[in-house]
Amino acid sequence: MQALTHNENWKLDPARCFNPEPTWRQTATELYETVKDLPLVCPHGHVSPDLLADPAATLGSPADLFIIPDHYVFRMLYSQGIGLETLGIPASNDTNLPVESDHRAIWQRFAENFHLFRGTPTGLWLTDELINLFGINTKLNGVTAQVIYDQLSRQLASAEFKPLALYKQFKIEVLCTTDPPWASLEQHTTLQSMGLRVLPTMRPDGVINLDAPGWVANIEQLAQVCRIDIKDYASFIRCLEDRRTFFKQRGATATDQGCQTPYTERLPDYQAEAIFERAFRQHLEPTDASRFSAHMIMEMARMSLEDGLVMQLHAGSHRNHNQFLFEEFGPDKGADIPVQTEWTNNLYNLLNTFGNDRRLSLVLFGLDESAYSRELAPLAGHYPALLLGPPWWFFDSVNGMNRYLDRVIETAGVYNTAGFNDDTRAFASIPARHDVWRRVTCNWLAGQHLKGLIDREDAGEMALDFAYRRAKQVYQLDK
Amino acid sequence: MQALTHNENWKLDPARCFNPEPTWRQTATELYETVKDLPLVCPHGHVSPDLLADPAATLGSPADLFIIPDHYVFRMLYSQGIGLETLGIPASNDTNLPVESDHRAIWQRFAENFHLFRGTPTGLWLTDELINLFGINTKLNGVTAQVIYDQLSRQLASAEFKPLALYKQFKIEVLCTTDPPWASLEQHTTLQSMGLRVLPTMRPDGVINLDAPGWVANIEQLAQVCRIDIKDYASFIRCLEDRRTFFKQRGATATDQGCQTPYTERLPDYQAEAIFERAFRQHLEPTDASRFSAHMIMEMARMSLEDGLVMQLHAGSHRNHNQFLFEEFGPDKGADIPVQTEWTNNLYNLLNTFGNDRRLSLVLFGLDESAYSRELAPLAGHYPALLLGPPWWFFDSVNGMNRYLDRVIETAGVYNTAGFNDDTRAFASIPARHDVWRRVTCNWLAGQHLKGLIDREDAGEMALDFAYRRAKQVYQLDK
Amino acid sequence: MQALTHNENWKLDPARCFNPEPTWRQTATELYETVKDLPLVCPHGHVSPDLLADPAATLGSPADLFIIPDHYVFRMLYSQGIGLETLGIPASNDTNLPVESDHRAIWQRFAENFHLFRGTPTGLWLTDELINLFGINTKLNGVTAQVIYDQLSRQLASAEFKPLALYKQFKIEVLCTTDPPWASLEQHTTLQSMGLRVLPTMRPDGVINLDAPGWVANIEQLAQVCRIDIKDYASFIRCLEDRRTFFKQRGATATDQGCQTPYTERLPDYQAEAIFERAFRQHLEPTDASRFSAHMIMEMARMSLEDGLVMQLHAGSHRNHNQFLFEEFGPDKGADIPVQTEWTNNLYNLLNTFGNDRRLSLVLFGLDESAYSRELAPLAGHYPALLLGPPWWFFDSVNGMNRYLDRVIETAGVYNTAGFNDDTRAFASIPARHDVWRRVTCNWLAGQHLKGLIDREDAGEMALDFAYRRAKQVYQLDK
Repeated sequence: MQALTHNENWKLDPARCFNPEPTWRQTATELYETVKDLPLVCPHGHVSPDLLADPAATLGSPADLFIIPDHYVFRMLYSQGIGLETLGIPASNDTNLPVESDHRAIWQRFAENFHLFRGTPTGLWLTDELINLFGINTKLNGVTAQVIYDQLSRQLASAEFKPLALYKQFKIEVLCTTDPPWASLEQHTTLQSMGLRVLPTMRPDGVINLDAPGWVANIEQLAQVCRIDIKDYASFIRCLEDRRTFFKQRGATATDQGCQTPYTERLPDYQAEAIFERAFRQHLEPTDASRFSAHMIMEMARMSLEDGLVMQLHAGSHRNHNQFLFEEFGPDKGADIPVQTEWTNNLYNLLNTFGNDRRLSLVLFGLDESAYSRELAPLAGHYPALLLGPPWWFFDSVNGMNRYLDRVIETAGVYNTAGFNDDTRAFASIPARHDVWRRVTCNWLAGQHLKGLIDREDAGEMALDFAYRRAKQVYQLDK
Repeated sequence: MQALTHNENWKLDPARCFNPEPTWRQTATELYETVKDLPLVCPHGHVSPDLLADPAATLGSPADLFIIPDHYVFRMLYSQGIGLETLGIPASNDTNLPVESDHRAIWQRFAENFHLFRGTPTGLWLTDELINLFGINTKLNGVTAQVIYDQLSRQLASAEFKPLALYKQFKIEVLCTTDPPWASLEQHTTLQSMGLRVLPTMRPDGVINLDAPGWVANIEQLAQVCRIDIKDYASFIRCLEDRRTFFKQRGATATDQGCQTPYTERLPDYQAEAIFERAFRQHLEPTDASRFSAHMIMEMARMSLEDGLVMQLHAGSHRNHNQFLFEEFGPDKGADIPVQTEWTNNLYNLLNTFGNDRRLSLVLFGLDESAYSRELAPLAGHYPALLLGPPWWFFDSVNGMNRYLDRVIETAGVYNTAGFNDDTRAFASIPARHDVWRRVTCNWLAGQHLKGLIDREDAGEMALDFAYRRAKQVYQLDK
Repeated sequence: MQALTHNENWKLDPARCFNPEPTWRQTATELYETVKDLPLVCPHGHVSPDLLADPAATLGSPADLFIIPDHYVFRMLYSQGIGLETLGIPASNDTNLPVESDHRAIWQRFAENFHLFRGTPTGLWLTDELINLFGINTKLNGVTAQVIYDQLSRQLASAEFKPLALYKQFKIEVLCTTDPPWASLEQHTTLQSMGLRVLPTMRPDGVINLDAPGWVANIEQLAQVCRIDIKDYASFIRCLEDRRTFFKQRGATATDQGCQTPYTERLPDYQAEAIFERAFRQHLEPTDASRFSAHMIMEMARMSLEDGLVMQLHAGSHRNHNQFLFEEFGPDKGADIPVQTEWTNNLYNLLNTFGNDRRLSLVLFGLDESAYSRELAPLAGHYPALLLGPPWWFFDSVNGMNRYLDRVIETAGVYNTAGFNDDTRAFASIPARHDVWRRVTCNWLAGQHLKGLIDREDAGEMALDFAYRRAKQVYQLDK
């Protein structure tokens, strides 16, 4: 094996993600040809609307684009002992960690450790972006780092690499953002007036989870935008309902919320009121926050049933597992670790209250793959209100998708799933992420077809469903 | 891709379920040729003996055959908002749901939604039945529905499609039914006198689970057939023992029982008596039913050890998860949802009492695949009394079987597994279900052989074991 | 299919473990060629140092070599009702079980049941050893048993099959043993003086788990070698620290410990002291042992951080599940059954105390595969101190390794894993076990490469990492 450190012909296999068996690859390619150029439907993600609405916004330096905002990237570097401060991650004010400000040095550090991403989805997305978006043709490593940095910098400064230009180049048909309930949504209005379908999604975690950091301040922000004096549980609920209406008027078709355990229970109003009042006085009792969260899942379902917003529920992450990192650098720093997640019993109350009502669309996301075939597919394959979201986070990967398809489709079929979403805050990675999903589903369908389990016609229909139609239908973006 | 709505050449790939790689497919085909025409051994299922014993019985209309009795089919339609009443499922008397009685309309509804079954085992079985049993050569959909209904109706009215004629055509060597302990088993006697090996299996769930619906009435029925006055725990046990003897005399080789959690614990007699007495008085305390069930697993094992009946245990389903559906339509309506299942600790008492005794054969079935490699294979690969049943329910599927084989055989080997059973109430699907198992095991063995992990001789022996011999040996049907 | 009972051409496929698709097989073969002859690095295992240090030691009879010491082998025979006493396994003194002493008869019993190992890793290793180490060319079964026994016996009596000769033939670069903290390590000194890198590993389970059989005697042994009067918790800790230093001086680079649940919690000193004192008085309270074990995981991590020894933690086995077998035959008799294992919450205290400190290397091993992608890979892919060990025990198998690679690498990458270890007490199986790992990793990398997910250069580097370099680096054997 030769040393290929200066491989000047860095390429991606046009048949990547496909089974190498010739007939399989051929069939996968044929299916992929029918979906690869479809517009991108992005019903859930974390791109900031400012990036698109602010005419002055740019993607910044290569480090700004690829490293500093992306916890998929820096958590892997951190796992090998590379401090976040050396990667330019802003540290909290009370710390004296020296945060690296030289973006060339950050990039060098990253490039020297690019081998850490071998075989990871992050590695695949980064490679796709560097080669196909930026035209880099030399493999990234410590030696090539600075030459590549120069090229990237030149491009990022150019007009074609302005966020809005890329948005159009990416053929994004619709992009849903994730916004706190107190967001003004002004950028969405601006963007819509420009003909861009950028839609808000209300994520009320900061106010419905009573132990959320800054809950009191969040409630104040909420009260302010609602012009309601949130003085008790009833006014809180009224305010949330108002904001849902506001979001809907601004184009929202969905809400989203997160929880560690998807336990659901409707509290009697007097209990909900008492807990809310204790939160207000900052005197929460030990189980108050979790009971209130369980109650608010029920309440959000009730509201969704009334106003028709799709309800998304992301469960199973132990957030901020690393206290040191949380204190120094804040949340979303790659230290959210999945936990075992039980759905059958936890969702019992919700499903027995709302699960038979087709007016509700509840899309579930989990991080415990053992529940795919055991609980999630059987639940989605039975309850009219339930849908299963695509593989999430660590499982937004080639193998993760294959496991999902193998475990879910036999029981739930395609039509109880919700297509794909990229769930990303890394704007430039959106096409790469959709492309992996389109490739993997086409390859999986090719296999199912060649194994005689679905005919060619059905494979073709399912490819379109996976790539484009399911997401659009489930999130009511076809209306 | 052309629209193939009227594909007049509806076919199934003769190499279905096989890996498309040419050598692999060839080897799988060779192995499959040696097992595909073997008689069917059906040691566990839910076909009604009346269907065969009653000379007037027919398979009814296409809706009677394919839709109304099959919760695999209608739960998928229900998940998309199609009410069970519109599919002809009988509703409870106190409801005013208008139950569809037009079987053509039911069939039309089903056909229009046949795409829901793309990629599901139900879709594969239905396609196999329509093409290979009924000779349908036009793909089922909303347009072709009525023409196909006509053809099916003609055939179902003919002599060749009488249940007994199909039984012979299917080459069923032995068919075990599942019967309550108070069953008279007259039909089994009739069928046996006709030379058919149709054997009863005692399933005492309705009397050993004290919270079973209609427990008091069940006990009365049991007492009546036993001619024992069940007045206490001791007479209850005596009665069960009597019925086991009766079943054995009528040809039974096995019992079966279900539980949500496979916890096992022998209660002291006085506690079992006290609980039983509370059940009688309808004053059960909260944990009584689950403690008594745990106790009765121990008791059934003791009896099996004494009378030699194989003991089957199906664990891990949260039955009737959907209360609305249960109240309107009753049990077994596709709303049984799996739960996490722990075996190592739960079976500890049972295995330490009976697990080393080779006279007991306990066959386990679960719905939590994560336990295959973690608990079930290691347990079956150690305890002489323990065997692992085939993939159950949602996992009676191509991918489900492949996962089972990959996770189980390396640790338990073939000879601590129990072959296949179809577990079906859909009589006409029996050959299709066995065929999938035979195909998948042969394909898996072909892969193991081509990967150099087993030689050709062993692959051939294992193919016979999987397809035919294990089920016969484990259930003592070779005696 | 012909009967091949006397196949005189027993062979192993040179491309075993490789995907049969021609290009895939070719690429796997090319990668494998680069690693197959690398020296064996064995950082964790259970070979007795006496076997190598005692000039008189031999591998004994074929039964001594292949059956009597290997619980992988006899637990499978036991699962089919073959009593351990009939296989020559020594029974306890108070039993009157007649232990078979005729090794030819034991071998015959084993050979007649060799089909039980079809498709198991044990079957693959045994076949590899018989064919490639001993040159047997007739398939083992009841008919060929005695001829093969004769040939094996002749060879085992020869000089080439002395343990030391095999050690050299196997190209073992370094072999780490597992030793109680009171071990004198004299054999290690002897072996090192002979130029053999045989290193001890301290496994303190017998003294840190207060409910370990013989705890009092173990403490006495420990006190004796330490020349410290262990009279309280403080002297116990001092003694352990002394022994760690002693082990390190004798070449140890790691410790190892086992637990059923990996719960971690630092007790206040006064509580640790009180529990230790109760253990001394043999008056343990119900939770004392488990709390002390949780505390000692923290303490061992602290010590590792101070002295630099790599810390291994093996969790998730319910040891000695079969009481009868434990009483008759003792521990390690194939009756250790895995249980569900939770890591995210259980390791929370440890990781928040030591997880960010790169001076600690904690290598985790588990038996609950559902935790690979859910907890272990995300944890190892974040915490600098954490590494994930190779698939353990039941998962040290072709399919087990493939599942591990598919579930772990995408999230943790290669560089948060710890390479391979054979973990065996079956000395002669060491090359076969490493060979399976090398083959499976090369085949998996070939697949990743042919699917376009890693380039050829990276595949080559990762093959070396998996086969050789990771183990050496992680266990500091490159120093």
